[in-house]
Amino acid sequence: SKTLRVAVIPGDGIGTEVMPWGVKCLQATAKVFNIAIEFEHFDFASCEYYQKHGDMMPSNWKEQLISFDAIYFGAVGMPNLVPDDVSLWGSLLKFRREFDQYVNLRPCRLMPGVKCPLAGKKPGDIDFWIVRENTEGEYSSIGGKMFEGTDREVVIQETVMSRVGVDRILRYAFELAKSRPRKRLTSATKSNGISITMPYWDGRVSEMHKSYPEINLDKYHIDILTAHFVGRPEIFDVIVGSNLFGDILSDLGPACTGTIAIAPSANINPEGKFPSLFEPVHGSAPDIVGKNLANPIGMIWAGQMLLQHFGYIEAADALLKAIERILERSEASVLTPDMGGTGTTQALGEAIEREI
Amino acid sequence: SKTLRVAVIPGDGIGTEVMPWGVKCLQATAKVFNIAIEFEHFDFASCEYYQKHGDMMPSNWKEQLISFDAIYFGAVGMPNLVPDDVSLWGSLLKFRREFDQYVNLRPCRLMPGVKCPLAGKKPGDIDFWIVRENTEGEYSSIGGKMFEGTDREVVIQETVMSRVGVDRILRYAFELAKSRPRKRLTSATKSNGISITMPYWDGRVSEMHKSYPEINLDKYHIDILTAHFVGRPEIFDVIVGSNLFGDILSDLGPACTGTIAIAPSANINPEGKFPSLFEPVHGSAPDIVGKNLANPIGMIWAGQMLLQHFGYIEAADALLKAIERILERSEASVLTPDMGGTGTTQALGEAIEREI
Ligand SMILES: CC(C)[C@H](C(=O)O)[C@@H](O)C(=O)O
Ligand SMILES: CC(C)[C@H](C(=O)O)[C@@H](O)C(=O)O
Repeated sequence: SKTLRVAVIPGDGIGTEVMPWGVKCLQATAKVFNIAIEFEHFDFASCEYYQKHGDMMPSNWKEQLISFDAIYFGAVGMPNLVPDDVSLWGSLLKFRREFDQYVNLRPCRLMPGVKCPLAGKKPGDIDFWIVRENTEGEYSSIGGKMFEGTDREVVIQETVMSRVGVDRILRYAFELAKSRPRKRLTSATKSNGISITMPYWDGRVSEMHKSYPEINLDKYHIDILTAHFVGRPEIFDVIVGSNLFGDILSDLGPACTGTIAIAPSANINPEGKFPSLFEPVHGSAPDIVGKNLANPIGMIWAGQMLLQHFGYIEAADALLKAIERILERSEASVLTPDMGGTGTTQALGEAIEREI
Repeated sequence: SKTLRVAVIPGDGIGTEVMPWGVKCLQATAKVFNIAIEFEHFDFASCEYYQKHGDMMPSNWKEQLISFDAIYFGAVGMPNLVPDDVSLWGSLLKFRREFDQYVNLRPCRLMPGVKCPLAGKKPGDIDFWIVRENTEGEYSSIGGKMFEGTDREVVIQETVMSRVGVDRILRYAFELAKSRPRKRLTSATKSNGISITMPYWDGRVSEMHKSYPEINLDKYHIDILTAHFVGRPEIFDVIVGSNLFGDILSDLGPACTGTIAIAPSANINPEGKFPSLFEPVHGSAPDIVGKNLANPIGMIWAGQMLLQHFGYIEAADALLKAIERILERSEASVLTPDMGGTGTTQALGEAIEREI
């Protein structure tokens, strides 16, 4: 079988600290299951690169990356060096958009051994997928300022939804729900307040539901939906949301399962025309950089999603099991501080690597 | 002292069920503290009204209401009868905008006797205010559709922020933070993704901070901010956010304190040029209408905010204490099902009325 070619982009901050463990665990799994993976490292898409070159990436980044099967991505952002909107729009958000990674898929699962901040929940109680639209919506580049610097100053930013963009993410979500035993899909909306784009979203959801009569569909306004994440997370199976709503829910969801540091994110171009991108949900966390405290599980689990995406199901299952066993064992010297332990990035990374 | 004139608008669904208890508790408090309040009831701003008249309100609603000091408002929305965007933009959102109630103030407090869904939290641990911009931002009426009904369909909605609109809500939030012992203000942003309006918001926050050097200011992107609501709610004191972010946080916050059914909301026109509006955070809850199960505390606590707003501090404190004592006593036959009890709207309403 062909060699999987992976572009490794650690980025900034703890991205550079967790990435080595992601690569090691992927390599260890590949060895056991006899999968051919080839890694190539890139130093662009980092604020350090920006400081040297005045841009987050070289102008030919697309040519450099397009032939890879996947991008394995750490985290970007050092707000003290480069404003976040500049660093993110110059890297991660560019990948998502220009490589048309229109599906952002994020699991939300209460893992064994992880302390849940919600009272009385146990593994199995929280187990759902968030499907986030990843290329349009509220994350737009259209808008501007008028009467700048005066009291009349007005700033406008346009949310853009297209039928193509909305329908393809909904179809993906309906299909995913169909593949699950409960066949339940929840749509995040806010059509009572956001009066043009969100009723449109609702309309497309109803329309698409006609082709999937077997799906139990419901919808919640985003405000009460976040409340239900805390109050009754067990009701959810697959949730679909716009770019912004998906973003919010996929931080809140993992927080409800104990720590966002273990959550992965797959940015998928389902047609395989462009490389898909796999990353942890957490960011660059400038406050804990250099302390060897970063939790590498988000990065490692993102690698697991990479294997899964390319059809290496057995290997992916084994890697997830290895993560679960380490969490279940809950040795204080192994778990990082965000999970209540005293371990280091290295201790936790090594434990998982060995477990594989 | 002058008579407080209050327009009572129960609206839809459980709004009509909790309103009588709100009025009774306000009357009981007014009696004890010798406050002159006069109530006048209005049946418009309801979906029933819409079905009869083809509009949520009569064309002269403004003339009818403008001379009142306050509007005491239940809830609006019956999506099976009238689409939510039509009913809300025709009532509540119209009040907020046309009566320039630009401050939406919402307390978030873990009350004694209420079961907290977050593990290990006790009353006192969660106690903060959400200050929400209430007239502009993401809730805009500008935008539209193109290529309707075709595959090229595009829908656009514009977020609008003005210097006047942003600065006045920030000033209110900084002033509120200044009045609190911890003097801490948190700004909700998303300037890494929403690249035009949110960096503008951040800029105005920094600018305003110069006039309030004594305030401990921080900012979080909305995604991680929702995560912190679950993980470490005790860090917050005053939070300021845009219309949408404030909306989300003020459902999530109360959910973290046990039930959104007890949370109140004050829609304030600080200059007193127009009536301010006081309402529960919960909506019309069509699913539990007619069952006598609705929790009246959100409505009653909104009445408490009304008293507070008009300077009846002693009376307001007494009313809040009465609510707290009933919650603390936690009699199963008094508490409504959302708080784990078996009580009815009436049982809980009466208990508080008696306690006053
Ligand atoms: C009903 C709805 C339009 C409203 C809002 O989004 O503002 C409500 O959720 C609120 O928080 O007051
Ligand atoms: C860093 C930021 C731009 C990004 C987003 O908002 O999409 C992140 O929060 C995420 O969820 O991947």
